[in-house]
Amino acid sequence: MTGPLFAAIEAGGTKMVLGIGSADGSIKQATVPTRGPDETLADMASFFAASPPVAAIGVASFGPLDLDPASPGFGRILPSAKTAWVGVDLLGAARAMVGGVPGAIDTDVNGAALAEARAAGCRDLAYVTVGTGIGVGLVVNGGPVHGAAHPEGGHVLLRRHPAHDGFAGICPMHHDCIEGLASGPAIKAAWGASLGELALDHVAWEVEADYLAQLCAAIILMTAPERIVLGGGVMGQARLLGPIRDRAAALLAGYGRGTDRARLDSRIVPPISREPPGLVGAYLLAASAT
Amino acid sequence: MTGPLFAAIEAGGTKMVLGIGSADGSIKQATVPTRGPDETLADMASFFAASPPVAAIGVASFGPLDLDPASPGFGRILPSAKTAWVGVDLLGAARAMVGGVPGAIDTDVNGAALAEARAAGCRDLAYVTVGTGIGVGLVVNGGPVHGAAHPEGGHVLLRRHPAHDGFAGICPMHHDCIEGLASGPAIKAAWGASLGELALDHVAWEVEADYLAQLCAAIILMTAPERIVLGGGVMGQARLLGPIRDRAAALLAGYGRGTDRARLDSRIVPPISREPPGLVGAYLLAASAT
Repeated sequence: MTGPLFAAIEAGGTKMVLGIGSADGSIKQATVPTRGPDETLADMASFFAASPPVAAIGVASFGPLDLDPASPGFGRILPSAKTAWVGVDLLGAARAMVGGVPGAIDTDVNGAALAEARAAGCRDLAYVTVGTGIGVGLVVNGGPVHGAAHPEGGHVLLRRHPAHDGFAGICPMHHDCIEGLASGPAIKAAWGASLGELALDHVAWEVEADYLAQLCAAIILMTAPERIVLGGGVMGQARLLGPIRDRAAALLAGYGRGTDRARLDSRIVPPISREPPGLVGAYLLAASAT
Repeated sequence: MTGPLFAAIEAGGTKMVLGIGSADGSIKQATVPTRGPDETLADMASFFAASPPVAAIGVASFGPLDLDPASPGFGRILPSAKTAWVGVDLLGAARAMVGGVPGAIDTDVNGAALAEARAAGCRDLAYVTVGTGIGVGLVVNGGPVHGAAHPEGGHVLLRRHPAHDGFAGICPMHHDCIEGLASGPAIKAAWGASLGELALDHVAWEVEADYLAQLCAAIILMTAPERIVLGGGVMGQARLLGPIRDRAAALLAGYGRGTDRARLDSRIVPPISREPPGLVGAYLLAASAT
């Protein structure tokens, strides 16, 4: 271990992954289940209180987050379904756990995108998590994309697959955005089971690959990243990757460089970070804060 | 006029706009019709030969372009329907017209996006041209987006409007991407006339607004720019703006900050550059080359 020690938090809806180390590796790691903010933050504080001092802390968090440095609510969690966490000053709380050292916060998916971009040596990369929700993190010209708020690529509107006719979708806002049609809970709502529980010739596999291919095509047409990294629980079904690449190549129809089927083998890929990409991203955020 | 003089070329499929001056304004401007490369480049060279010397030249061009600085074909036009121009070294030719001074090249839409971002004081902006084709230029974190090649947001795949059922779309690759469904030639192919020639209650207006709203929603969800500037010939029909904002607000359904209908009045907007945005962008590219 060379260089300064950092603290890292990958804040998720079901668990908080905590680490001490750097983007090159953790020397200490723990996981705390996400409950209400008081008890969860207390457990996190205990972990860091028993850890060596750090130069800075990084947080890659579920959202929506206020990431406008000029906003009085910077670093806080914005209104969403996780009502208990709304308004929580996650960055402030994290910094207080490690003696008030400098800190930085970004979305979990931007953190993961930063980590994967570093691992792959890319300046332009998209990280897509497909799990309880769907999120898209973007690194463009080497930096994370925030825009006016933060992008919500998980809510991109899709063309409905014919086999999905009559399924309402589970997104309360858009119904048939990609999170509403292709997240883990959407798969269960549509078919009564997760992909892994369904036969390999069930149409659910084709439907899921089509939706994720539509998202990949939209990302390639919009920002042309060198890599689209697909992570998250649903992508634990690695056999989805081939059909996603097949369908994305068909949708793109050879338009633009690097959209032929063979090239997509190295362009639509699984994560390569050796630790959870969000945690590695949190270390990178910490390093950027010093 | 303070600061150095620059040369600028906005290279389009129907005309080349040439200027001497800076992003603050041209002191001399001319337009040359785009024909074959030999005669067109000769006319352009005559204009610059009769102009004062410049510190650098910028080119904002139709494409597809090779924008990979490491490529042997950097600055050249890639294969497309404009076969006579394929392989033309536009950046090299432009620099030769002004004594070999430094030069820079980018897409016409990225040039326009840079110009509009400067005019509006934005770090994150999308420029959409809706004309003979549809193109999307993106500025993220203050810089133009290239990715692995260059993005082709004009080919984003849409949900077909019900009133457009049976219309094949004119894009030879995707048929029903946004260029195939909503460009000027697509409007003529679908309805036999341009929007300006159709009655104001013709469904074509609603269809066009829906498609452009779908594109705006996709851009907002994907990169969340502060502004989406809509330019190009079709947007000469300024009455499209209101219905586009209405429909985009409905599609986004309040998700994400800055997506409510009132905010879209200042987020989905016409160009504000005082000269053609592509030409202003070419001046900015020239300045970046020195």
